[in-house]
Amino acid sequence: MANFSSSDVTAVNTIRTLAADVVAKANSGHPGAPMGMAPVAHVLFTRFMRFNSKNPKWINRDRFVLSNGHACALQYILLHLAGYEVSMEDLKQFRQIDSITPGHPEVGVTPGIEVTTGPLGQGISNAVGLAIAQAHMGAVFNKENFSLIDNYTYCFLGDGCLQEGVASEACSLAGHLKLANLVAIYDDNKITIDGDTAVSFTEDVEMRFKSYGWNVLHVEKGDDDLAAIESAIAEAKKSKDAPTIINLKTTIGFGSLKAGGHDVHGAPLKKDDIAQLKKKFGFNPEESFVVPQETSDLYNKVAQNGAKADAEWQALFKSYSEKYPKEAAELQRRIEGRLPEGWEKALPTYTTSDAAVGSRKLSETTITKLAEVLPELVGGSADLTGSNLTRWKGAEDFQHPSTGLGSYAGRYFRFGVREHGMTAICNGIAAYGGIIPFCATFLNFVSYAAGAVRLSALSHLRVLNVATHDSIGLGEDGPTHQPVETAAWLRALPNLAFWRPADGNETSAAYLVGILSQHTPSVYALSRQNLPQLANSSIEKAAKGGYVVEEVENADVTLVSTGSEVYLCLDALEQLKSKGIKARLVSLPCFEVFNNQPKDYKLSVLPSGAPILSVEAYSTFGWGAYSHDHFGLKAWGASGPYNKVYEKFDITPQGIARRAEKVVDFYKKRGQPVFSPLISALDDISE
Amino acid sequence: MANFSSSDVTAVNTIRTLAADVVAKANSGHPGAPMGMAPVAHVLFTRFMRFNSKNPKWINRDRFVLSNGHACALQYILLHLAGYEVSMEDLKQFRQIDSITPGHPEVGVTPGIEVTTGPLGQGISNAVGLAIAQAHMGAVFNKENFSLIDNYTYCFLGDGCLQEGVASEACSLAGHLKLANLVAIYDDNKITIDGDTAVSFTEDVEMRFKSYGWNVLHVEKGDDDLAAIESAIAEAKKSKDAPTIINLKTTIGFGSLKAGGHDVHGAPLKKDDIAQLKKKFGFNPEESFVVPQETSDLYNKVAQNGAKADAEWQALFKSYSEKYPKEAAELQRRIEGRLPEGWEKALPTYTTSDAAVGSRKLSETTITKLAEVLPELVGGSADLTGSNLTRWKGAEDFQHPSTGLGSYAGRYFRFGVREHGMTAICNGIAAYGGIIPFCATFLNFVSYAAGAVRLSALSHLRVLNVATHDSIGLGEDGPTHQPVETAAWLRALPNLAFWRPADGNETSAAYLVGILSQHTPSVYALSRQNLPQLANSSIEKAAKGGYVVEEVENADVTLVSTGSEVYLCLDALEQLKSKGIKARLVSLPCFEVFNNQPKDYKLSVLPSGAPILSVEAYSTFGWGAYSHDHFGLKAWGASGPYNKVYEKFDITPQGIARRAEKVVDFYKKRGQPVFSPLISALDDISE
Repeated sequence: MANFSSSDVTAVNTIRTLAADVVAKANSGHPGAPMGMAPVAHVLFTRFMRFNSKNPKWINRDRFVLSNGHACALQYILLHLAGYEVSMEDLKQFRQIDSITPGHPEVGVTPGIEVTTGPLGQGISNAVGLAIAQAHMGAVFNKENFSLIDNYTYCFLGDGCLQEGVASEACSLAGHLKLANLVAIYDDNKITIDGDTAVSFTEDVEMRFKSYGWNVLHVEKGDDDLAAIESAIAEAKKSKDAPTIINLKTTIGFGSLKAGGHDVHGAPLKKDDIAQLKKKFGFNPEESFVVPQETSDLYNKVAQNGAKADAEWQALFKSYSEKYPKEAAELQRRIEGRLPEGWEKALPTYTTSDAAVGSRKLSETTITKLAEVLPELVGGSADLTGSNLTRWKGAEDFQHPSTGLGSYAGRYFRFGVREHGMTAICNGIAAYGGIIPFCATFLNFVSYAAGAVRLSALSHLRVLNVATHDSIGLGEDGPTHQPVETAAWLRALPNLAFWRPADGNETSAAYLVGILSQHTPSVYALSRQNLPQLANSSIEKAAKGGYVVEEVENADVTLVSTGSEVYLCLDALEQLKSKGIKARLVSLPCFEVFNNQPKDYKLSVLPSGAPILSVEAYSTFGWGAYSHDHFGLKAWGASGPYNKVYEKFDITPQGIARRAEKVVDFYKKRGQPVFSPLISALDDISE
Repeated sequence: MANFSSSDVTAVNTIRTLAADVVAKANSGHPGAPMGMAPVAHVLFTRFMRFNSKNPKWINRDRFVLSNGHACALQYILLHLAGYEVSMEDLKQFRQIDSITPGHPEVGVTPGIEVTTGPLGQGISNAVGLAIAQAHMGAVFNKENFSLIDNYTYCFLGDGCLQEGVASEACSLAGHLKLANLVAIYDDNKITIDGDTAVSFTEDVEMRFKSYGWNVLHVEKGDDDLAAIESAIAEAKKSKDAPTIINLKTTIGFGSLKAGGHDVHGAPLKKDDIAQLKKKFGFNPEESFVVPQETSDLYNKVAQNGAKADAEWQALFKSYSEKYPKEAAELQRRIEGRLPEGWEKALPTYTTSDAAVGSRKLSETTITKLAEVLPELVGGSADLTGSNLTRWKGAEDFQHPSTGLGSYAGRYFRFGVREHGMTAICNGIAAYGGIIPFCATFLNFVSYAAGAVRLSALSHLRVLNVATHDSIGLGEDGPTHQPVETAAWLRALPNLAFWRPADGNETSAAYLVGILSQHTPSVYALSRQNLPQLANSSIEKAAKGGYVVEEVENADVTLVSTGSEVYLCLDALEQLKSKGIKARLVSLPCFEVFNNQPKDYKLSVLPSGAPILSVEAYSTFGWGAYSHDHFGLKAWGASGPYNKVYEKFDITPQGIARRAEKVVDFYKKRGQPVFSPLISALDDISE
């Protein structure tokens, strides 16, 4: 251990004993991986990671991702030692209500946490996104002698992450993109919850990553060979055109009496086990939560070096600002997340004289306009570019320059048929800062990415999901491709805006709100079939999530609808009128946004007085919050030309009008006042 | 082409011209892959596939899976030629409403289709399941000289399938399990929708499959070298301890003027292109949907050979029945899908004197009892065995015997951390017949498998999903692991029974109904925390999906709840009683099953007359169909001891009672009759 002293060994053992203490005090958590990965964490944080713990948002910091997020005791301990705002008291509050040290790492909750991890496979995929973001920002802003954006992304991951399909998708793409700035460290401890990896995971991981085009290294003695760890990471950083994975052999729960077995994975160590552990490592078994002075000193030094690196970077940025004032201002704007003045004027508006087109096409027009005014907008499709219509004219692909297919300054992504990886990568891109990513697939296959979509929302990341072919309107591809349940799932997700625009103005509104919502992901459900432009839509109205399309006094019934069914309802209104029935029409493109409007406004859109009938070519599940009766699909869609499919399910102006009549009759017969479903007995309960 | 004649070439070209015709007539579909894969399809179906087109359900038939399901014109054509009940008229109805030739293959719709494919990556994962099922049934039923169950599973797949994470998961496991009976044929045509695979998919596929432990072969001239194709498949069948993938180089749209490009992938060929194609292949360009006599003859011969193979097998089975009458009867029972007489008596019942335990523990007891009486019940966990509690005492693992860890007769699966692959594999196992598979993970990670869960439901496959850690009740793991939106998604899925049992009897009911529902998948949302046994529950009542737990005359309010919140409501009832409020309590463990009860029964459970308040520690999305007001989670959960988490969200007897009071007051003040939300104006509409 040429470069390492006994202070390093003490520090490693401090991390191990702290991990045992933290989990024991919570009486819940995972001590095994933190104890096994203490050496590599120590080497990485003290010898490689560039960060300023007093300025955790420094744009050119190295990113650290703990993909095996259940090992977060390790990360919290490192953050504490390195001087982040994570106190010893916070460590003692591990896994307690409202602490900043929850059971898995959550971005926004703990200073120094870059992305939310725990659901396996997400972290490494986020890391690919973080690496992409660095490569892109560097390509856009770096100048000769000004390597402003050149950070690395380091990621720890375990067997679990490697088994997850999302990781396979993201890592295959990372190899294709030759992301040399990405260093993954695989904690090869041969243990999963079910026991030895021999029971289910016997693939040759190194060969697999070679097949992806990665640089593959390994360290045999990860438990104590700090020098070998150091040289492997140093070697990884030299890679020029490939991401690196270091296969690090460790012993789970190193130091415990149960080391090397799955008992130490997910439960606190027993009291006497902790005692012997501390004794073995030269710590007082009677004491808990101890950081020796030499360890504090060592980490204080690291923190000081980090602050110095940040200061040097600020100086570099200052001289960059002098030489490249325009670029510097632009970088500053993007780091701060300010949108360019007047960008929203680029959003197209429509009148009824504009042609009927599919909302996927309207989305294409919008993306094309926005790409001009928002250089931070980047994105692409999971191999459905020609169907999603996501590539704007003149776009350059994000590719390694050696391919001749694009460059890292390119803003259009070819994600391949990798929906889950795509969305998880976009979460990483969004988490980096300075970039607004979008990703695209059919709405039906947003479900493939469910694990990552959920984390966009939980992590408050502005990721735009372009989801075309949004219903039975896709026609011939049939029920395997026709989402009927997907809207219900996305609408039930907290902090996610699911939009189903009915025309051009509503499409523009969806992008307006999606881009303004810095902390909320959006999904845009877009039609394949053509939609006429509504007479009474506007960006302003639609941006409220719901509005009145057709008003009438003393209405007999309100129809409420979304997307491609709104104009069918408009036609139904004509039919009802001819029968003397007065019907209003409401478009509700986004529940989430509508829910956040003032109560008065909402009640003006969906008032008491007349029954409300919803019309949507999805499962009716969830419409009870907005309508009294619901017309939609009772089961799956069907394969056929789209208009025939709509006819099969009677979702036509005639079918809608017939049901509206039924509703009017029913409530007339009942003879009771009708109250808006928006009114709840629990509205004003204090919580 | 030693073994092949000009008739084979004619047959191949017949398939190609038919594919062009089928897609052109529909004016929709994918001609490219069918034209490129015509040679391998021909060789496989005429030289290897063992099937009887007049008895498509013959248990020992080879299974064919078209994982690139968009190429289904190919499959329909092969089924037609091979004598299945797929007529030329059916081919002409490709992608039309209510035809048996929908846009993607759907099991149950078309004779000869084994699994529903199209969503990429599913088919190959189903194929792994089909191969597992064969290996298992063979290990259980074969005897010396009686190789009753020894079929192969053949799977075609393209670049898209290989990029999907679900395929990575399933193929890694297939390698681990050494499934020598699985032959995958990769259509390596270098084209995806976005163009050349060079834009996104440059990994070394052969190396990747070697890393999984597969046997890797390749055929350079897949467009015309029938002999090479034949010898590769023959070689694959010789593999003793590894699945095989054959990398087959083909030209997409072979024969078209646009062959080799992505234009032929997903759109009909132009008229003159079809004309030149037919001319080139010696067909009359003026004619469509032509099968030359020599091709008919060739395939008739194949069909006859298949019928003969079936007859020989029936004879073999007859002599097996004589020598092993018990085993033969058992195999017959399982093939027919009959459950053993009186199996349901094994379901445990409970009274209030039984201990309060987590419903995951109740599930373990149930599985343990059922494993004894249902030898067709097999299953396992995605590396959460000790948490899901899915392994019964004495279970043997399903493993290749060489591992020393189990055998193919084993019924317990170690799926690894591969949720999506697991569920897709279980779809394949269920599709094989004779087996009832279950799979297990945390409820939150059922979302990872969304693509496959949806297909369980669409394909009418009885797959049981054990989903433990079902809500904020999992406590410390925190919001990354606490499902709040998952129930809404699963309840919105047609033909899926989402159960959230409140106690032991309800857990037994969930298994009872799940096993009796031959054509419906179930998800069991099970608690980590302990639940007391309810006084008024029973298997019979809970099997209706919803029932009255506490009745009271002239109720002021009905509480309706599920799972771990039911007993909290019971306590709330006591509190309300002390305030003079008469409250009923309903448990609604399964919406799907409750919805299918007679209207009268449903209205007796959730009647008009008093307001209904729902209580559930999930998003309230979707409760509008059953209750007037809804108490649940407004956003994400939290990390902490579970009782503290419940307190944080006020989901306690006090919090429930307080809201119930509000509801009672509100409706009293309104002073109008209250109608059950089950009553809809659209109830009796003819559709």
